Amino acid sequence: MKLIIGNKNYSSWSLRPWLLLATHKLAFDEERIPLDEPDTKARILEASEAGKVPVLKDGDLTVWDSLAICEYVSEKYLDGRGWPQDLAARAEARAVSAEMHSGLFAIRGQMPMNCRATGRRVPMTPELENEIARVDRLWSDCRAKYSAGGPWLFGDFSIADCMFAPVTSRFATYGVSLSDRAREYQQQVLNSAPMQDWIRAGSEETEIVQADEAGA
Amino acid sequence: MKLIIGNKNYSSWSLRPWLLLATHKLAFDEERIPLDEPDTKARILEASEAGKVPVLKDGDLTVWDSLAICEYVSEKYLDGRGWPQDLAARAEARAVSAEMHSGLFAIRGQMPMNCRATGRRVPMTPELENEIARVDRLWSDCRAKYSAGGPWLFGDFSIADCMFAPVTSRFATYGVSLSDRAREYQQQVLNSAPMQDWIRAGSEETEIVQADEAGA
Repeated sequence: MKLIIGNKNYSSWSLRPWLLLATHKLAFDEERIPLDEPDTKARILEASEAGKVPVLKDGDLTVWDSLAICEYVSEKYLDGRGWPQDLAARAEARAVSAEMHSGLFAIRGQMPMNCRATGRRVPMTPELENEIARVDRLWSDCRAKYSAGGPWLFGDFSIADCMFAPVTSRFATYGVSLSDRAREYQQQVLNSAPMQDWIRAGSEETEIVQADEAGA
Repeated sequence: MKLIIGNKNYSSWSLRPWLLLATHKLAFDEERIPLDEPDTKARILEASEAGKVPVLKDGDLTVWDSLAICEYVSEKYLDGRGWPQDLAARAEARAVSAEMHSGLFAIRGQMPMNCRATGRRVPMTPELENEIARVDRLWSDCRAKYSAGGPWLFGDFSIADCMFAPVTSRFATYGVSLSDRAREYQQQVLNSAPMQDWIRAGSEETEIVQADEAGA
Protein backbone atom coordinates (compact mmCIF):
# COMPACT_ATOMS: atom_id res chain seq x y z
CA MET A 1 0.00 0.00 0.00
CA LYS A 2 1.05 3.55 -0.66
CA LEU A 3 -0.68 6.42 1.10
CA ILE A 4 -0.42 9.80 -0.60
CA ILE A 5 -0.77 12.65 1.87
CA GLY A 6 -0.36 16.42 2.13
CA ASN A 7 1.77 18.31 4.65
CA LYS A 8 1.65 16.64 8.04
CA ASN A 9 1.47 20.05 9.69
CA TYR A 10 -1.70 21.06 7.85
CA SER A 11 -3.48 18.17 6.13
CA SER A 12 -6.17 17.09 8.55
CA TRP A 13 -7.79 14.76 6.01
CA SER A 14 -4.47 12.99 5.43
CA LEU A 15 -3.96 12.36 9.13
CA ARG A 16 -7.11 10.24 9.42
CA PRO A 17 -6.22 7.15 7.33
CA TRP A 18 -2.52 7.55 8.20
CA LEU A 19 -3.42 7.18 11.87
CA LEU A 20 -5.47 4.05 11.19
CA LEU A 21 -2.60 2.43 9.28
CA ALA A 22 0.05 3.53 11.78
CA THR A 23 -1.89 2.56 14.90
CA HIS A 24 -2.49 -0.92 13.51
CA LYS A 25 1.17 -1.12 12.41
CA LEU A 26 0.19 -1.99 8.84
CA ALA A 27 3.05 -1.77 6.34
CA PHE A 28 2.70 1.13 3.91
CA ASP A 29 4.76 3.58 1.91
CA GLU A 30 4.13 7.25 2.26
CA GLU A 31 4.25 9.86 -0.49
CA ARG A 32 4.01 13.45 0.64
CA ILE A 33 2.71 16.13 -1.75
CA PRO A 34 3.15 19.54 -0.07
CA LEU A 35 0.00 21.63 -0.53
CA ASP A 36 -0.17 25.10 -2.06
CA GLU A 37 2.97 24.70 -4.21
CA PRO A 38 3.07 25.43 -7.98
CA ASP A 39 2.95 21.72 -8.89
CA THR A 40 0.57 20.56 -6.13
CA LYS A 41 -2.58 20.43 -8.23
CA ALA A 42 -0.99 18.50 -11.09
CA ARG A 43 0.68 16.03 -8.74
CA ILE A 44 -2.54 15.29 -6.85
CA LEU A 45 -4.59 14.99 -10.06
CA GLU A 46 -2.06 12.48 -11.35
CA ALA A 47 -2.71 10.39 -8.23
CA SER A 48 -6.51 10.74 -8.28
CA GLU A 49 -9.06 12.43 -10.52
CA ALA A 50 -10.90 13.64 -7.43
CA GLY A 51 -7.98 16.03 -6.98
CA LYS A 52 -7.63 15.73 -3.23
CA VAL A 53 -5.40 14.02 -0.70
CA PRO A 54 -5.36 11.52 0.89
CA VAL A 55 -5.24 8.82 -1.78
CA LEU A 56 -4.48 5.15 -1.18
CA LYS A 57 -2.88 3.02 -3.88
CA ASP A 58 -3.13 -0.71 -3.29
CA GLY A 59 -1.89 -2.61 -6.33
CA ASP A 60 -4.13 -1.53 -9.22
CA LEU A 61 -6.74 -0.02 -6.93
CA THR A 62 -7.01 3.70 -6.17
CA VAL A 63 -9.16 4.69 -3.20
CA TRP A 64 -9.69 8.33 -2.36
CA ASP A 65 -11.29 10.22 0.53
CA SER A 66 -10.30 9.79 4.17
CA LEU A 67 -13.42 7.90 5.24
CA ALA A 68 -13.57 5.60 2.21
CA ILE A 69 -9.89 4.71 2.66
CA CYS A 70 -10.50 3.86 6.31
CA GLU A 71 -13.48 1.65 5.40
CA TYR A 72 -11.39 -0.15 2.78
CA VAL A 73 -8.44 -0.72 5.11
CA SER A 74 -10.76 -1.99 7.82
CA GLU A 75 -12.35 -4.52 5.46
CA LYS A 76 -9.25 -5.65 3.64
CA TYR A 77 -6.58 -5.63 6.36
CA LEU A 78 -8.31 -5.45 9.74
CA ASP A 79 -11.11 -7.96 9.37
CA GLY A 80 -13.57 -5.17 10.18
CA ARG A 81 -11.75 -4.11 13.37
CA GLY A 82 -11.70 -0.52 12.15
CA TRP A 83 -15.18 -0.22 13.69
CA PRO A 84 -16.73 -1.41 16.95
CA GLN A 85 -17.87 -5.02 16.72
CA ASP A 86 -21.32 -4.33 18.19
CA LEU A 87 -23.83 -3.32 15.48
CA ALA A 88 -25.40 -0.44 17.42
CA ALA A 89 -22.03 0.95 18.54
CA ARG A 90 -20.80 0.65 14.97
CA ALA A 91 -23.81 2.62 13.71
CA GLU A 92 -23.11 5.33 16.27
CA ALA A 93 -19.41 5.39 15.39
CA ARG A 94 -20.25 5.79 11.73
CA ALA A 95 -22.73 8.57 12.57
CA VAL A 96 -20.21 10.64 14.53
CA SER A 97 -17.60 9.99 11.84
CA ALA A 98 -20.00 11.11 9.11
CA GLU A 99 -20.94 14.20 11.10
CA MET A 100 -17.24 15.14 11.19
CA HIS A 101 -16.80 14.19 7.52
CA SER A 102 -19.60 16.38 6.19
CA GLY A 103 -19.84 19.20 8.70
CA LEU A 104 -18.38 21.15 11.60
CA PHE A 105 -17.40 23.83 9.12
CA ALA A 106 -16.66 26.56 11.66
CA ILE A 107 -14.03 24.43 13.39
CA ARG A 108 -12.59 23.36 10.06
CA GLY A 109 -12.61 26.84 8.56
CA GLN A 110 -11.72 29.04 11.52
CA MET A 111 -9.32 26.66 13.27
CA PRO A 112 -7.24 25.09 10.50
CA MET A 113 -5.04 22.22 11.64
CA ASN A 114 -1.59 23.66 12.27
CA CYS A 115 0.24 21.25 14.53
CA ARG A 116 3.26 23.43 15.20
CA ALA A 117 1.39 26.70 15.96
CA THR A 118 0.74 25.98 19.66
CA GLY A 119 -0.33 29.13 21.49
CA ARG A 120 -2.07 30.65 18.48
CA ARG A 121 -5.50 32.20 19.22
CA VAL A 122 -8.42 32.87 16.86
CA PRO A 123 -11.55 35.02 17.46
CA MET A 124 -14.50 33.13 18.92
CA THR A 125 -17.74 33.25 16.91
CA PRO A 126 -21.18 31.87 17.84
CA GLU A 127 -20.86 29.13 15.18
CA LEU A 128 -17.45 28.10 16.49
CA GLU A 129 -18.69 28.09 20.05
CA ASN A 130 -21.67 25.90 19.12
CA GLU A 131 -19.52 23.42 17.26
CA ILE A 132 -16.93 23.19 20.03
CA ALA A 133 -19.76 22.50 22.49
CA ARG A 134 -21.12 19.84 20.14
CA VAL A 135 -17.76 18.08 19.83
CA ASP A 136 -17.21 18.29 23.59
CA ARG A 137 -20.61 16.67 24.15
CA LEU A 138 -19.98 13.97 21.54
CA TRP A 139 -16.63 13.03 23.06
CA SER A 140 -17.95 13.19 26.64
CA ASP A 141 -21.05 11.12 25.84
CA CYS A 142 -19.05 8.47 24.02
CA ARG A 143 -16.50 8.27 26.82
CA ALA A 144 -19.25 8.01 29.46
CA LYS A 145 -20.94 5.23 27.51
CA TYR A 146 -17.97 3.20 26.33
CA SER A 147 -15.28 3.76 28.98
CA ALA A 148 -15.43 0.15 30.20
CA GLY A 149 -14.13 -1.03 26.81
CA GLY A 150 -11.00 1.12 26.70
CA PRO A 151 -9.77 4.72 26.50
CA TRP A 152 -10.97 5.57 22.98
CA LEU A 153 -14.29 7.05 21.83
CA PHE A 154 -15.92 3.64 21.51
CA GLY A 155 -13.66 1.77 23.92
CA ASP A 156 -11.22 0.17 21.49
CA PHE A 157 -9.44 2.39 18.98
CA SER A 158 -11.66 2.89 15.90
CA ILE A 159 -12.03 4.92 12.73
CA ALA A 160 -14.09 7.43 14.74
CA ASP A 161 -10.88 8.30 16.64
CA CYS A 162 -9.09 8.81 13.32
CA MET A 163 -11.84 11.13 12.10
CA PHE A 164 -11.60 13.34 15.18
CA ALA A 165 -7.81 13.22 15.63
CA PRO A 166 -7.28 16.46 13.66
CA VAL A 167 -9.76 18.20 15.99
CA THR A 168 -7.80 17.13 19.07
CA SER A 169 -4.80 18.87 17.48
CA ARG A 170 -6.77 22.00 16.50
CA PHE A 171 -8.13 22.35 20.04
CA ALA A 172 -4.59 22.05 21.41
CA THR A 173 -3.16 24.58 18.96
CA TYR A 174 -5.82 27.20 19.68
CA GLY A 175 -6.12 26.53 23.42
CA VAL A 176 -9.77 25.46 23.47
CA SER A 177 -11.15 24.74 26.97
CA LEU A 178 -12.94 21.41 27.27
CA SER A 179 -14.86 19.51 29.92
CA ASP A 180 -12.80 17.04 31.96
CA ARG A 181 -13.96 13.98 30.06
CA ALA A 182 -13.40 15.57 26.67
CA ARG A 183 -9.94 16.83 27.68
CA GLU A 184 -8.93 13.40 28.90
CA TYR A 185 -9.95 11.95 25.56
CA GLN A 186 -8.10 14.70 23.69
CA GLN A 187 -4.93 13.86 25.65
CA GLN A 188 -5.40 10.15 24.95
CA VAL A 189 -5.25 10.89 21.21
CA LEU A 190 -2.48 13.49 21.35
CA ASN A 191 -0.25 11.30 23.55
CA SER A 192 -0.52 8.19 21.40
CA ALA A 193 2.80 7.22 19.80
CA PRO A 194 1.61 7.47 16.16
CA MET A 195 0.07 10.89 16.81
CA GLN A 196 3.30 12.08 18.44
CA ASP A 197 5.21 10.85 15.37
CA TRP A 198 2.86 12.74 13.05
CA ILE A 199 3.08 15.98 15.05
CA ARG A 200 6.87 15.76 15.25
CA ALA A 201 7.12 15.25 11.48
CA GLY A 202 4.73 18.15 10.92
CA SER A 203 6.79 20.46 13.11
CA GLU A 204 9.91 19.61 11.09
CA GLU A 205 8.28 20.59 7.78
CA THR A 206 9.31 23.97 6.43
CA GLU A 207 6.59 24.77 3.88
CA ILE A 208 4.02 27.42 4.81
CA VAL A 209 0.38 27.24 3.67
CA GLN A 210 -0.66 30.83 4.20
CA ALA A 211 -4.42 30.11 4.19
CA ASP A 212 -3.98 27.80 7.18
CA GLU A 213 -1.99 30.28 9.24
CA ALA A 214 -5.05 31.66 11.05
CA GLY A 215 -4.93 33.63 14.27
CA ALA A 216 -2.20 35.44 16.12
CA MET B 1 -37.90 1.76 11.66
CA LYS B 2 -38.86 5.39 11.49
CA LEU B 3 -37.08 7.74 9.11
CA ILE B 4 -37.28 11.43 9.97
CA ILE B 5 -36.87 13.61 6.91
CA GLY B 6 -37.23 17.22 5.77
CA ASN B 7 -39.31 18.52 2.87
CA LYS B 8 -39.22 16.10 -0.03
CA ASN B 9 -38.98 19.02 -2.43
CA TYR B 10 -35.80 20.36 -0.88
CA SER B 11 -34.07 17.93 1.48
CA SER B 12 -31.42 16.26 -0.61
CA TRP B 13 -29.83 14.56 2.40
CA SER B 14 -33.19 13.04 3.37
CA LEU B 15 -33.71 11.57 -0.07
CA ARG B 16 -30.61 9.39 0.15
CA PRO B 17 -31.55 6.89 2.90
CA TRP B 18 -35.23 7.15 1.94
CA LEU B 19 -34.36 5.91 -1.54
CA LEU B 20 -32.36 2.99 -0.14
CA LEU B 21 -35.26 1.92 2.08
CA ALA B 22 -37.90 2.46 -0.61
CA THR B 23 -35.99 0.74 -3.42
CA HIS B 24 -35.45 -2.34 -1.26
CA LYS B 25 -39.10 -2.20 -0.13
CA LEU B 26 -38.14 -2.24 3.53
CA ALA B 27 -40.98 -1.38 5.91
CA PHE B 28 -40.56 2.00 7.60
CA ASP B 29 -42.57 4.90 8.96
CA GLU B 30 -41.87 8.36 7.77
CA GLU B 31 -41.95 11.55 9.83
CA ARG B 32 -41.63 14.78 7.90
CA ILE B 33 -40.28 17.91 9.60
CA PRO B 34 -40.65 20.84 7.18
CA LEU B 35 -37.47 22.92 7.14
CA ASP B 36 -37.21 26.66 7.82
CA GLU B 37 -40.36 26.82 10.00
CA PRO B 38 -40.43 28.39 13.49
CA ASP B 39 -40.39 25.01 15.24
CA THR B 40 -38.04 23.20 12.84
CA LYS B 41 -34.88 23.49 14.90
CA ALA B 42 -36.51 22.32 18.13
CA ARG B 43 -38.22 19.39 16.42
CA ILE B 44 -35.03 18.18 14.78
CA LEU B 45 -32.99 18.59 17.96
CA GLU B 46 -35.53 16.51 19.79
CA ALA B 47 -34.94 13.73 17.26
CA SER B 48 -31.15 14.01 17.21
CA GLU B 49 -28.57 16.11 19.03
CA ALA B 50 -26.71 16.54 15.75
CA GLY B 51 -29.58 18.83 14.75
CA LYS B 52 -29.94 17.65 11.17
CA VAL B 53 -32.22 15.45 9.10
CA PRO B 54 -32.31 12.65 8.14
CA VAL B 55 -32.47 10.65 11.37
CA LEU B 56 -33.30 6.97 11.64
CA LYS B 57 -34.93 5.54 14.75
CA ASP B 58 -34.77 1.78 15.05
CA GLY B 59 -36.01 0.67 18.43
CA ASP B 60 -33.77 2.35 21.01
CA LEU B 61 -31.14 3.22 18.44
CA THR B 62 -30.79 6.66 16.83
CA VAL B 63 -28.63 6.88 13.71
CA TRP B 64 -28.02 10.23 12.06
CA ASP B 65 -26.40 11.35 8.80
CA SER B 66 -27.41 10.11 5.36
CA LEU B 67 -24.34 7.96 4.77
CA ALA B 68 -24.21 6.43 8.25
CA ILE B 69 -27.91 5.53 8.01
CA CYS B 70 -27.34 3.83 4.66
CA GLU B 71 -24.39 1.85 6.08
CA TYR B 72 -26.51 0.75 9.03
CA VAL B 73 -29.48 -0.29 6.90
CA SER B 74 -27.19 -2.20 4.56
CA GLU B 75 -25.65 -4.14 7.45
CA LYS B 76 -28.78 -4.77 9.47
CA TYR B 77 -31.44 -5.32 6.80
CA LEU B 78 -29.72 -5.98 3.48
CA ASP B 79 -26.96 -8.38 4.44
CA GLY B 80 -24.45 -5.92 3.02
CA ARG B 81 -26.24 -5.60 -0.34
CA GLY B 82 -26.23 -1.82 0.00
CA TRP B 83 -22.76 -1.95 -1.54
CA PRO B 84 -21.23 -3.89 -4.44
CA GLN B 85 -20.16 -7.37 -3.37
CA ASP B 86 -16.70 -7.11 -4.96
CA LEU B 87 -14.16 -5.54 -2.56
CA ALA B 88 -12.54 -3.23 -5.12
CA ALA B 89 -15.89 -2.07 -6.53
CA ARG B 90 -17.12 -1.50 -2.99
CA ALA B 91 -14.06 0.65 -2.22
CA GLU B 92 -14.72 2.70 -5.35
CA ALA B 93 -18.42 3.03 -4.51
CA ARG B 94 -17.56 4.25 -1.03
CA ALA B 95 -15.02 6.71 -2.49
CA VAL B 96 -17.51 8.32 -4.89
CA SER B 97 -20.13 8.38 -2.12
CA ALA B 98 -17.69 10.05 0.28
CA GLU B 99 -16.71 12.58 -2.39
CA MET B 100 -20.38 13.54 -2.70
CA HIS B 101 -20.83 13.47 1.07
CA SER B 102 -17.99 15.86 1.89
CA GLY B 103 -17.71 18.00 -1.21
CA LEU B 104 -19.12 19.27 -4.50
CA PHE B 105 -20.05 22.47 -2.71
CA ALA B 106 -20.74 24.56 -5.81
CA ILE B 107 -23.41 22.12 -7.01
CA ARG B 108 -24.88 21.89 -3.52
CA GLY B 109 -24.78 25.63 -2.87
CA GLN B 110 -25.62 27.09 -6.27
CA MET B 111 -28.07 24.42 -7.43
CA PRO B 112 -30.19 23.58 -4.37
CA MET B 113 -32.44 20.56 -4.81
CA ASN B 114 -35.86 21.89 -5.79
CA CYS B 115 -37.75 19.04 -7.42
CA ARG B 116 -40.73 21.06 -8.59
CA ALA B 117 -38.79 24.02 -10.09
CA THR B 118 -38.15 22.45 -13.50
CA GLY B 119 -37.02 25.07 -16.00
CA ARG B 120 -35.23 27.21 -13.43
CA ARG B 121 -31.79 28.49 -14.51
CA VAL B 122 -28.84 29.63 -12.37
CA PRO B 123 -25.68 31.50 -13.44
CA MET B 124 -22.77 29.28 -14.40
CA THR B 125 -19.53 29.80 -12.48
CA PRO B 126 -16.11 28.18 -13.04
CA GLU B 127 -16.49 26.15 -9.82
CA LEU B 128 -19.92 24.91 -10.86
CA GLU B 129 -18.68 24.03 -14.33
CA ASN B 130 -15.75 22.06 -12.89
CA GLU B 131 -17.95 20.12 -10.51
CA ILE B 132 -20.55 19.31 -13.16
CA ALA B 133 -17.74 18.01 -15.39
CA ARG B 134 -16.42 15.94 -12.48
CA VAL B 135 -19.82 14.37 -11.79
CA ASP B 136 -20.36 13.70 -15.49
CA ARG B 137 -16.99 11.94 -15.64
CA LEU B 138 -17.69 9.95 -12.49
CA TRP B 139 -21.05 8.73 -13.75
CA SER B 140 -19.73 8.02 -17.26
CA ASP B 141 -16.68 6.14 -16.00
CA CYS B 142 -18.73 4.02 -13.61
CA ARG B 143 -21.29 3.23 -16.30
CA ALA B 144 -18.55 2.31 -18.79
CA LYS B 145 -16.90 0.02 -16.25
CA TYR B 146 -19.92 -1.63 -14.64
CA SER B 147 -22.61 -1.62 -17.35
CA ALA B 148 -22.51 -5.44 -17.69
CA GLY B 149 -23.84 -5.77 -14.14
CA GLY B 150 -26.93 -3.59 -14.53
CA PRO B 151 -28.07 -0.01 -15.18
CA TRP B 152 -26.85 1.62 -11.94
CA LEU B 153 -23.51 3.25 -11.17
CA PHE B 154 -21.94 -0.02 -10.06
CA GLY B 155 -24.26 -2.36 -11.97
CA ASP B 156 -26.71 -3.30 -9.23
CA PHE B 157 -28.44 -0.52 -7.31
CA SER B 158 -26.21 0.64 -4.45
CA ILE B 159 -25.78 3.35 -1.82
CA ALA B 160 -23.69 5.27 -4.37
CA ASP B 161 -26.89 5.75 -6.42
CA CYS B 162 -28.65 7.05 -3.31
CA MET B 163 -25.85 9.53 -2.66
CA PHE B 164 -26.05 10.97 -6.17
CA ALA B 165 -29.85 10.83 -6.60
CA PRO B 166 -30.31 14.44 -5.44
CA VAL B 167 -27.81 15.54 -8.09
CA THR B 168 -29.80 13.82 -10.85
CA SER B 169 -32.75 15.94 -9.71
CA ARG B 170 -30.72 19.17 -9.49
CA PHE B 171 -29.35 18.65 -13.00
CA ALA B 172 -32.92 18.11 -14.29
CA THR B 173 -34.29 21.17 -12.49
CA TYR B 174 -31.57 23.50 -13.79
CA GLY B 175 -31.28 21.99 -17.28
CA VAL B 176 -27.65 20.86 -17.07
CA SER B 177 -26.30 19.31 -20.29
CA LEU B 178 -24.59 15.98 -19.80
CA SER B 179 -22.72 13.47 -21.92
CA ASP B 180 -24.83 10.62 -23.35
CA ARG B 181 -23.71 8.06 -20.78
CA ALA B 182 -24.24 10.42 -17.86
CA ARG B 183 -27.66 11.48 -19.16
CA GLU B 184 -28.76 7.86 -19.54
CA TYR B 185 -27.75 7.24 -15.96
CA GLN B 186 -29.55 10.38 -14.80
CA GLN B 187 -32.74 9.16 -16.51
CA GLN B 188 -32.33 5.71 -14.95
CA VAL B 189 -32.48 7.30 -11.50
CA LEU B 190 -35.20 9.84 -12.24
CA ASN B 191 -37.47 7.25 -13.87
CA SER B 192 -37.26 4.72 -11.06
CA ALA B 193 -40.59 4.22 -9.28
CA PRO B 194 -39.39 5.29 -5.79
CA MET B 195 -37.78 8.44 -7.22
CA GLN B 196 -41.00 9.27 -9.09
CA ASP B 197 -42.91 8.84 -5.82
CA TRP B 198 -40.54 11.15 -4.00
CA ILE B 199 -40.69 13.84 -6.71
CA ARG B 200 -44.49 13.66 -6.86
CA ALA B 201 -44.75 14.05 -3.08
CA GLY B 202 -42.30 16.95 -3.20
CA SER B 203 -44.31 18.72 -5.86
CA GLU B 204 -47.43 18.43 -3.70
CA GLU B 205 -45.80 20.12 -0.72
CA THR B 206 -46.75 23.75 -0.19
CA GLU B 207 -44.00 25.06 2.11
CA ILE B 208 -41.39 27.37 0.60
CA VAL B 209 -37.76 27.39 1.76
CA GLN B 210 -36.64 30.74 0.40
CA ALA B 211 -32.90 29.98 0.60
CA ASP B 212 -33.37 27.04 -1.78
CA GLU B 213 -35.32 29.01 -4.37
CA ALA B 214 -32.24 29.88 -6.44
CA GLY B 215 -32.32 31.05 -10.03
CA ALA B 216 -35.01 32.42 -12.28
